[in-house]
Amino acid sequence: MPCPFLGSLNQAFVRNYGAALMKQYGNYCPIISRGFRSLGQDETKCPFIQENSIVSEAPREMTEDIVDRSPYQYDKFFHDQINAKKKDYSYRVFRKVSRLAAEGAYPKALEGSANNRVTVWCANDYLGTSRHPAVQDAAVSAIKAYGTGAGGTRNIAGNSQMTEQLEAEIAKLHKKPAALIFSSCYVANDATLSTLGKLLPGCHIYSDAGNHASMIQGIRHSQAPKHIFRHNDPNHLREMLEASPIGVPKLVVFETVHSMSGAICPLEEMCAIAHEYGALTFVDEVHAVGLYGKHGAGIGEERGIEHMIDIVSGTLGKAFGNVGGYIAGSSLLVDTVRSLAPGFIFTTALPPPVLAGSLASIRLLASEEGRTLRAKHQAMVRYLKLSLLVAGLPQLPSVSHIVPVPIKGADKVALVAESLMKRGHYVQAINYPTVARGEERLRFAPGPHHTPEMIDQLVTALTEAFHENNISFNQFIKNGACRECSMEYKFDVMYEEPYKLPLAA
Amino acid sequence: MPCPFLGSLNQAFVRNYGAALMKQYGNYCPIISRGFRSLGQDETKCPFIQENSIVSEAPREMTEDIVDRSPYQYDKFFHDQINAKKKDYSYRVFRKVSRLAAEGAYPKALEGSANNRVTVWCANDYLGTSRHPAVQDAAVSAIKAYGTGAGGTRNIAGNSQMTEQLEAEIAKLHKKPAALIFSSCYVANDATLSTLGKLLPGCHIYSDAGNHASMIQGIRHSQAPKHIFRHNDPNHLREMLEASPIGVPKLVVFETVHSMSGAICPLEEMCAIAHEYGALTFVDEVHAVGLYGKHGAGIGEERGIEHMIDIVSGTLGKAFGNVGGYIAGSSLLVDTVRSLAPGFIFTTALPPPVLAGSLASIRLLASEEGRTLRAKHQAMVRYLKLSLLVAGLPQLPSVSHIVPVPIKGADKVALVAESLMKRGHYVQAINYPTVARGEERLRFAPGPHHTPEMIDQLVTALTEAFHENNISFNQFIKNGACRECSMEYKFDVMYEEPYKLPLAA
Repeated sequence: MPCPFLGSLNQAFVRNYGAALMKQYGNYCPIISRGFRSLGQDETKCPFIQENSIVSEAPREMTEDIVDRSPYQYDKFFHDQINAKKKDYSYRVFRKVSRLAAEGAYPKALEGSANNRVTVWCANDYLGTSRHPAVQDAAVSAIKAYGTGAGGTRNIAGNSQMTEQLEAEIAKLHKKPAALIFSSCYVANDATLSTLGKLLPGCHIYSDAGNHASMIQGIRHSQAPKHIFRHNDPNHLREMLEASPIGVPKLVVFETVHSMSGAICPLEEMCAIAHEYGALTFVDEVHAVGLYGKHGAGIGEERGIEHMIDIVSGTLGKAFGNVGGYIAGSSLLVDTVRSLAPGFIFTTALPPPVLAGSLASIRLLASEEGRTLRAKHQAMVRYLKLSLLVAGLPQLPSVSHIVPVPIKGADKVALVAESLMKRGHYVQAINYPTVARGEERLRFAPGPHHTPEMIDQLVTALTEAFHENNISFNQFIKNGACRECSMEYKFDVMYEEPYKLPLAA
Repeated sequence: MPCPFLGSLNQAFVRNYGAALMKQYGNYCPIISRGFRSLGQDETKCPFIQENSIVSEAPREMTEDIVDRSPYQYDKFFHDQINAKKKDYSYRVFRKVSRLAAEGAYPKALEGSANNRVTVWCANDYLGTSRHPAVQDAAVSAIKAYGTGAGGTRNIAGNSQMTEQLEAEIAKLHKKPAALIFSSCYVANDATLSTLGKLLPGCHIYSDAGNHASMIQGIRHSQAPKHIFRHNDPNHLREMLEASPIGVPKLVVFETVHSMSGAICPLEEMCAIAHEYGALTFVDEVHAVGLYGKHGAGIGEERGIEHMIDIVSGTLGKAFGNVGGYIAGSSLLVDTVRSLAPGFIFTTALPPPVLAGSLASIRLLASEEGRTLRAKHQAMVRYLKLSLLVAGLPQLPSVSHIVPVPIKGADKVALVAESLMKRGHYVQAINYPTVARGEERLRFAPGPHHTPEMIDQLVTALTEAFHENNISFNQFIKNGACRECSMEYKFDVMYEEPYKLPLAA
């Protein structure tokens, strides 16, 4: 609220006679007089030449006309930003890990400057395709034949026969007429959602509260009206759509497998509701492609409802072991995004080794060998979940291949990760902004190349790490029931889908 | 303007009795009566059941309360979008070109499905590093040692010793304390500008009118107040900064080499003005890195004023022959972007072959061999400019390695490109949105592996292509002077900087 007294005066007058005004009337002002009182006994000294005098805290009305001629202190500002992040433990120091590709070495990595060998538990190269000989060979051949770079945007010299082969392969995988590749799935989500949301006249977007940053950015950049429904809650989605304007275009945007909780959405129900209200479904299968379904097309394929997904987005950088992202959908929609999305148009195309490696990887995971890898993957996941349960260690109920172990507090979770690293196990401590504050966790992603012995060693090390950092456990789950809420812990029925391979493999 | 008559009535009444109202009063309305008149003779027929009746063009005030219960016609909308682009010749059909890497084959490519061999004239792999044996070998070794993919974000398993080596190498190249790599330079520009513009309290951004889409997006996404100064015009920049608020953070954002015109900005002057007004300079050297300066650090290095650039952005996808982008600057600034930019944080890291290939490429171009490549590059550029001049073909005055040949009209330029392709030369027709409508051009980027003979063939083919498509030329330049404006054509003094290598090489 501006000061009613000063506000009644001419601004130039206040500027020129501010000091005199304050001395004369300051004591009558409830705000300023407080400042005067705090000056203490020595009231004869001029408050305007004292350091830390009340002048530095003059009410905003007094200061807004004072022009600061000193340039902005950029370094100080950036320094404060970094410091704030250090104070709340969200400042990140990246681990240096060179994941080894050689047969027998994978899934180990060289860590730090001393090059310690550690087992990697948190990579999203879920099935080890990045070091599969067929994928490596394809990438190497492409480098030899076509070089390391695309040399241009898709429109200018950067589009090759292989680029279109890869898009055709992706379209085939998802049983869609067309697909489009991007620098990353972050870019795919951002570019597609911002373009569609901006383009479709009067478009409303319905976004799952658990959505990944890339989708949130895309929706924000579209400037379309946004409605956030509770994570994986079809009823809330229905409520919101019920209240939505009829006849206008709508997008319903969500993920199948949640990256940090391992939850899988009620895909069929959410798509059905979206379609009931005339919305298009945009479904991010980033943590599912390569991992679920007969050909590795994701949860949509596993549940036989790929046709209910209007636009699927996926990545070439996780289970497919390379880098890049994509969307697949109707020819007209994909062609529109291709023709209008700046994030697609104005950037260098994916290079030959990435195209060739991704093609090989998609074909590999669509084959019998892919199905075997997926079965072993799920077997290892089950073995880790079971081992944690038996050891009495906490885990968040996950129905997918992601095994989150909650450790509240960014400092605590970092200490446990450090203790694990000392014991030869690399798992990243997950903190804000990847998860909300208070939701810190270790996120394990065992793969088909981890062995039961490695998992046994990990669980032993994790138990020691909890002890070492005085984190009590064992109280969460005992004998299949949660001590805190007496709820039966449904671990053993968490995931009963096709993967029944015996552990020995 | 809402109808003063209808506006005075109750909305529900208008909704229910719109048809009756129109029949009764329509003839008194200057807008509606026009519609009635156009119905022609047969005035006995009810206008409301006729096809294409005036109802479909009822004034907005009459329709806005009519609720359309049919779902949105997505396909029709996308179809219309594509059609609009086809109608104005901005719809793009990507050429399929597989650029060949083999010694002796480069800079040729296999084009289309018939795999014709063509010479590529428009790739941004300017120096052919994407097929340099040292770069290829580094990428291949990295695939064998570490696989094809990074396997995670920088924070989660995706940061390796090599990632940090590459950042250190980039920082060294630009004589900056720190550097940060991104999926692409589109992402680098977008993420850095949007983050800084949003973060710095009250930040104003001064943006060159010729800036690349990635910077425009980043500035837009920052939502900071934006001031656009005339392309490469330091006086206009000064005018704008003169009127700017004092003491608030400011960014001045521009490119050194313009991608489509080949213009080089008055770097020193623009930086000096920016600093005079307390702004940080953000300088995109995407089309200059690897190509200018003793070590290939760009125009900043060539002119010995790298220290005047506060934040430099560059790409690993053009002269460095791989993919990815980066920024370099002060440690605090780079650390802030690293810690806060979603486009950096939430995406898979660049994979081993890209890191290794880029490292090798930067080192190569910083070496004596790099200097030789740059000299040959500029020699070829001069030879092409000279050959066009001698042939009387038009070219836009460019002081850099980019040689634009203007051909107005998206249809015309496409036809000329097609004629060239038939003659074994691939150069992309550049149209909207890459350049403004009416600014269509062919954009040639000859490299050190093109030969004078290839250039001779190209110029002959281009002459034929102009004739074939009935495009008159030869009137633009004659005897070193422009026929149209009588200005002396300063081709031969366009670029007098260090590159003086004889053509025979």
